[in-house]
Amino acid sequence: MDIYQKLESNVRGYCRSFPVTFTKAQNATLTDDQGNTYIDFLGGAGTLNYGHNNPHFKQALLDYIEADGIAHGLDMHTEAKTAFLEAFDQHILQPRKMKYKVQFTGPTGTNAVEAALKIARKNTGRQTIVSFTNGFHGVTQGAAAVTANGYYKAAIGMPLPGVHFMPYDGYLGDFNTLHYFEKALQDKSSGLGHPAAVIVECIQGEGGLNSASAAWMLGLQALCKRYNMLLIVDDIQAGCGRSGTFFSFEEFGIEPDVITLSKSLSGFGLPMAVVLLKEKLDTWKPGEHNGTFRGNNHAFITARKAIETYWADDSFSQSVKKKAQLIRSRLKEIQAEHGGQMKHKGRGIMQGLECVNGQVASRITELAFKRGLIIETSGSDGQVVKILTPLTIEDKTLNAGLDILAQCIGDVMAEQISKAS
Amino acid sequence: MDIYQKLESNVRGYCRSFPVTFTKAQNATLTDDQGNTYIDFLGGAGTLNYGHNNPHFKQALLDYIEADGIAHGLDMHTEAKTAFLEAFDQHILQPRKMKYKVQFTGPTGTNAVEAALKIARKNTGRQTIVSFTNGFHGVTQGAAAVTANGYYKAAIGMPLPGVHFMPYDGYLGDFNTLHYFEKALQDKSSGLGHPAAVIVECIQGEGGLNSASAAWMLGLQALCKRYNMLLIVDDIQAGCGRSGTFFSFEEFGIEPDVITLSKSLSGFGLPMAVVLLKEKLDTWKPGEHNGTFRGNNHAFITARKAIETYWADDSFSQSVKKKAQLIRSRLKEIQAEHGGQMKHKGRGIMQGLECVNGQVASRITELAFKRGLIIETSGSDGQVVKILTPLTIEDKTLNAGLDILAQCIGDVMAEQISKAS
Amino acid sequence: MDIYQKLESNVRGYCRSFPVTFTKAQNATLTDDQGNTYIDFLGGAGTLNYGHNNPHFKQALLDYIEADGIAHGLDMHTEAKTAFLEAFDQHILQPRKMKYKVQFTGPTGTNAVEAALKIARKNTGRQTIVSFTNGFHGVTQGAAAVTANGYYKAAIGMPLPGVHFMPYDGYLGDFNTLHYFEKALQDKSSGLGHPAAVIVECIQGEGGLNSASAAWMLGLQALCKRYNMLLIVDDIQAGCGRSGTFFSFEEFGIEPDVITLSKSLSGFGLPMAVVLLKEKLDTWKPGEHNGTFRGNNHAFITARKAIETYWADDSFSQSVKKKAQLIRSRLKEIQAEHGGQMKHKGRGIMQGLECVNGQVASRITELAFKRGLIIETSGSDGQVVKILTPLTIEDKTLNAGLDILAQCIGDVMAEQISKAS
Amino acid sequence: MDIYQKLESNVRGYCRSFPVTFTKAQNATLTDDQGNTYIDFLGGAGTLNYGHNNPHFKQALLDYIEADGIAHGLDMHTEAKTAFLEAFDQHILQPRKMKYKVQFTGPTGTNAVEAALKIARKNTGRQTIVSFTNGFHGVTQGAAAVTANGYYKAAIGMPLPGVHFMPYDGYLGDFNTLHYFEKALQDKSSGLGHPAAVIVECIQGEGGLNSASAAWMLGLQALCKRYNMLLIVDDIQAGCGRSGTFFSFEEFGIEPDVITLSKSLSGFGLPMAVVLLKEKLDTWKPGEHNGTFRGNNHAFITARKAIETYWADDSFSQSVKKKAQLIRSRLKEIQAEHGGQMKHKGRGIMQGLECVNGQVASRITELAFKRGLIIETSGSDGQVVKILTPLTIEDKTLNAGLDILAQCIGDVMAEQISKAS
Repeated sequence: MDIYQKLESNVRGYCRSFPVTFTKAQNATLTDDQGNTYIDFLGGAGTLNYGHNNPHFKQALLDYIEADGIAHGLDMHTEAKTAFLEAFDQHILQPRKMKYKVQFTGPTGTNAVEAALKIARKNTGRQTIVSFTNGFHGVTQGAAAVTANGYYKAAIGMPLPGVHFMPYDGYLGDFNTLHYFEKALQDKSSGLGHPAAVIVECIQGEGGLNSASAAWMLGLQALCKRYNMLLIVDDIQAGCGRSGTFFSFEEFGIEPDVITLSKSLSGFGLPMAVVLLKEKLDTWKPGEHNGTFRGNNHAFITARKAIETYWADDSFSQSVKKKAQLIRSRLKEIQAEHGGQMKHKGRGIMQGLECVNGQVASRITELAFKRGLIIETSGSDGQVVKILTPLTIEDKTLNAGLDILAQCIGDVMAEQISKAS
Repeated sequence: MDIYQKLESNVRGYCRSFPVTFTKAQNATLTDDQGNTYIDFLGGAGTLNYGHNNPHFKQALLDYIEADGIAHGLDMHTEAKTAFLEAFDQHILQPRKMKYKVQFTGPTGTNAVEAALKIARKNTGRQTIVSFTNGFHGVTQGAAAVTANGYYKAAIGMPLPGVHFMPYDGYLGDFNTLHYFEKALQDKSSGLGHPAAVIVECIQGEGGLNSASAAWMLGLQALCKRYNMLLIVDDIQAGCGRSGTFFSFEEFGIEPDVITLSKSLSGFGLPMAVVLLKEKLDTWKPGEHNGTFRGNNHAFITARKAIETYWADDSFSQSVKKKAQLIRSRLKEIQAEHGGQMKHKGRGIMQGLECVNGQVASRITELAFKRGLIIETSGSDGQVVKILTPLTIEDKTLNAGLDILAQCIGDVMAEQISKAS
Repeated sequence: MDIYQKLESNVRGYCRSFPVTFTKAQNATLTDDQGNTYIDFLGGAGTLNYGHNNPHFKQALLDYIEADGIAHGLDMHTEAKTAFLEAFDQHILQPRKMKYKVQFTGPTGTNAVEAALKIARKNTGRQTIVSFTNGFHGVTQGAAAVTANGYYKAAIGMPLPGVHFMPYDGYLGDFNTLHYFEKALQDKSSGLGHPAAVIVECIQGEGGLNSASAAWMLGLQALCKRYNMLLIVDDIQAGCGRSGTFFSFEEFGIEPDVITLSKSLSGFGLPMAVVLLKEKLDTWKPGEHNGTFRGNNHAFITARKAIETYWADDSFSQSVKKKAQLIRSRLKEIQAEHGGQMKHKGRGIMQGLECVNGQVASRITELAFKRGLIIETSGSDGQVVKILTPLTIEDKTLNAGLDILAQCIGDVMAEQISKAS
Repeated sequence: MDIYQKLESNVRGYCRSFPVTFTKAQNATLTDDQGNTYIDFLGGAGTLNYGHNNPHFKQALLDYIEADGIAHGLDMHTEAKTAFLEAFDQHILQPRKMKYKVQFTGPTGTNAVEAALKIARKNTGRQTIVSFTNGFHGVTQGAAAVTANGYYKAAIGMPLPGVHFMPYDGYLGDFNTLHYFEKALQDKSSGLGHPAAVIVECIQGEGGLNSASAAWMLGLQALCKRYNMLLIVDDIQAGCGRSGTFFSFEEFGIEPDVITLSKSLSGFGLPMAVVLLKEKLDTWKPGEHNGTFRGNNHAFITARKAIETYWADDSFSQSVKKKAQLIRSRLKEIQAEHGGQMKHKGRGIMQGLECVNGQVASRITELAFKRGLIIETSGSDGQVVKILTPLTIEDKTLNAGLDILAQCIGDVMAEQISKAS
């Protein structure tokens, strides 16, 4: 691993937690160059919802490359793009009665967020975006501005104007945070002014698996309508099935003005991102937001396959919900066992346990890795152990992973007690 | 093409100039779904320096996917990444005696630029970045701030603080623009203050193929040293061999503090970007700049192959320079033929002709497309017809493309004259 | 009054409410050019705490001018300035054991606020200032940024970065707003970051006479200490005795890091402003914050006299408190009479009644003017009728004014009822 | 002077150069508490155009105060304000055929500048203001943003968005700086965009007495018209007769959209400021820009008197021009005597000598003070010795002051030579 010491910037992160060299992977199992295998509860930070090297998509990709299909297409029309759009329309938008235009941005989540913010400011002529405590939306300048985490904000080295943070659902205990938001909107002297838009995650992936209630999300949508603000749902991590439905907000019955998707959209871990926007908001002029890699056709091939394979009917959604239920039971058990030390968080296959601090959480994930489980933390202090395993994980592997997790937690709790005494 | 009308955002651009559906491509030739072929002088806007579906890389990529190689690796160590770093070190950095750390950012140019700006502000504790007239660096908020083009800036919908624009080499005719820059640095009341860094392209790709002289670039580097500003060279479009050498600044003998690379880095059109930074500037904390797709391992596979295939010796560089010479001769001929109507611009295989306005230029490219040549314009008014063909284009194809171009120009010039009379 | 129609900008305001031409004034009585007299409950918007043309100061000013005393002294030493500083030290700072440096800024409140913000950012190296809902601090760019009122913010025509608004005491009903502030400071992912300072009014003059409790102010000071933020108290309107003590925070036992004073500081209505700052914060370099009129020596003459006349012992303070008590009783009576329609606000001689909306409030003040009482509204909707009469008002005049006010309210309430039916 | 050491902030400036206590002053003569007299070539930094305690205005002010005239009137109508407006209309606006609305801002120059910037942004809906190298407009946040001097900008502690600096007339030697400005406006990719306004001083007072030529100012006005930008002339220091005419731009025949006046406007050194704006730009809503002291009626009294006394005919203007000619001759002589060491700058009674550096200049002013002449420096390095004496200075005193200046320069030049050898 000398080449990394020698050449790679200190900014590298995950490789510090998992200091081996991986060679191959299949579904929820990774293999290193020593032949060791690991259960993957990290799932590419939410990018591998359909597992590593999903065989359905893999063959389609191989065939496409073999046939000299267009790899890089800017935003020109290609067969691969046509097929993706048709599948997305047929299996995602139409069954949900969703009328949106699709914008292909540069193939990263942060790029989709940047485009969404532009759409909001452009269409309203206003500048303030309301974001929420513990929200994470990316690290380019516009996205970092709406990201709550001070670690990423500080790295910008400049103030980030045009954003106002409001407390997320549950942030102030029993106090309904929407009451504050509403009062600030009503009151011309609240300092808030008239925002262009609200950007929100239904489940805060990086923020520690806080999840908003249906009532809160509906209330937020109502506020947006009443005060003529756009509602942007950032579904980059929670979308593409992770919550149990394709979009994380489906069960709430809300209809965002703008939706961002990325991470698992391509299905194969290939870079891809889109913004969905209501037709009336599609006031873009040609090329006004561009990006060299917005036509990553390899990703279109696998994305189409992912949609056709998993979203043509609701069987996949059902299986995800079942697995989510399994995870919930196991985590609730662990919570019960270590009363007060562990708190269950999240929903869908985006659940975890909040530890008393980040040190405990990282001790758990460290131990887990030694025992063959790759799992990471999230939250402002890294205090939440987070399960982001592929949605396609075999039940056996899932249970094996949960067993390791439960044991590691037990051992770390025991350590803590022995330290304390 | 109905699905595009129905679903794709108005922001789409290139597909308006080239309204067909492409199905496959090989080196500098594209094929549409009617079986028509086109000579590619656009080259993925500088992303396909080694041509479409370069057979050297294609097989490596197929083998990797076939073997279930890691596709998406966040910033974990993988065999593919190790091999890329080793090749980059051996064939790119070492032979040039360049000592840099490599940062893998999100796999788009704009993301690399955002990281570079952070590096500058972080290491200097200052906020102003000096950028240049007609500079283009991307459309996310930080990158758009250093982009001169008002079309992209306006789309942000907010003021973009922390940037000061200086006139690029040649912007004020014979007046040496560095004199102004130097005076503004010396004078504590110039309004400029003490910038953190300068960001510059040696050849302005989107800005209309303005290219800086060696003297100017050396002078700029000297100013940077004297006033303790970082020199960031954005080599996203002009790098990876397009200028005739791997980096566009090699012949100047300068040593930037920070270099951004993307576009043709992966060699296959796959999303990938890196920032090269001097070791002393590598003050990043782990994960401080992140990005889901910074470990696009398919791109690492083809990037390594590209480096090993084309940069192990200087034969490729020689062939590029030869082709550049051919292009130069042809364009100079055209310029001579249409004296005053056409002005030669650029260097390497990044040359073009500046027309009297954007309308003439787009008439030329429109006609070219009808005759089987894909070519685009650049410049603030779209007034420069720009050749960005793959560096690997066969001489025959190159000449065929140049023939079409020459004819189209001739025809449009004739049209203009007949209109005028 | 034609010259005003012809020449004065539409920005003029108070003259619309009181459309007569005033010629002279004495203590709390104004006289117009028709010989009509008016009771002054506006008090120069808090600038005439010692009444119009206070005879104690008037003679001193006449003598000074007569003797060709320096009128305009930049920040050079003058006898008048020396005497002011000595009186301020002896009668204001020393008795209160307050150790502060005095900075003479440009002679307006907004200028003092701008200087205070610079002090905060300069000394902490941080940029965010926390301000509060309904806070008002001025209309120059820096001061407008910390002003909550959207009317003034919008007039800037630009986003105003570097400020975060928190809910003021009582803003969220029973919910202690400091809990939110504290949580946002603790949580590295709240979006707040680490502020340089907090700027707060103990009584919000323009914001509608909201007044903070001692517990809240002490809690705020504790937060500031714990998180190393400067506490700036803007005492421009509530200071100089209006609350019953010289500073509005005296009874809370807090010790701000920075204090701004203006309005009634000169005592005679002459422009003057100072910033008081803790010695360790006095890191200013010479002339770093300047202003042509920071040495308004006429104001120094009257300011010294005001201090010597009213603050050498506590008799004035006692009399103010007595008058405040009288006002409170009368307003509470009115509130009781019109249950639910009127709500008592404020403390000191800075009290008022909150009406159900701004229309009712302005109907009351309009009627009052017709009956010889000059009084204005405040609050985000102009819904609070506000008493800012000179502290030196004779009891008889005060009662006469309160009688008019009570009658007007009665009449307007009757109108409302008759309209509703 | 202990009280200053003890109490006054380090920000104090002029008192360091002139460390005595002044007690009284008459026209261009100051007297300290030891009975020493000084010739005043500083003139309150341009605030005392009509001298200290001008007897014409003094009596009017005494009478007004004696009669209990309104001192502080917010923006209510008063006799004093009416009379000022009538005089300003009759003697300033009408004879010059100038149609402007008058806005009374807070009584400081910086406040007028802030209002002017708001007017520009409000009326155009654009945000960028173009300011010039070495321009000085004040130290509140908006004004500091358009101020070129890094010393004042740094004190803000934040980036100051929305401003673009262009080189002032003569900044680049023979190169016409308007060519650059025009090119940047024409070119949609210059980074400049479409500015709301230009703010400019005809003579840069703080910036080192650079003065713009008629041709340049006319060219600038033409650019403003062509590109639909407002032209704001900041006449705070150069206005009120200092250039020889009431406005500094009269001889150019230009017609600014917005004009700021302050400093000598009141005539007596009392705080006062106005903005003149074209009627169509008067889109202010009531109170949208306010300020406690915008109705400083003492200043209105003296301002009216100043206008009536000095601007009812052109005799004063003639006398100022004669004195300016005298100063010019003397300074040119000094320049000739010390060839290459001293360079004449400025026009009107706003002239000076540029030394080779700030150290030499401050050595000269230091020596001058010892010899009874109060004079200061300006320019980015403090390298320009600047004459801002009252326009009413007696010829005898003026000559005496110039004699001292000439001697001091001679002595310092001799010192320099002896040091060098």
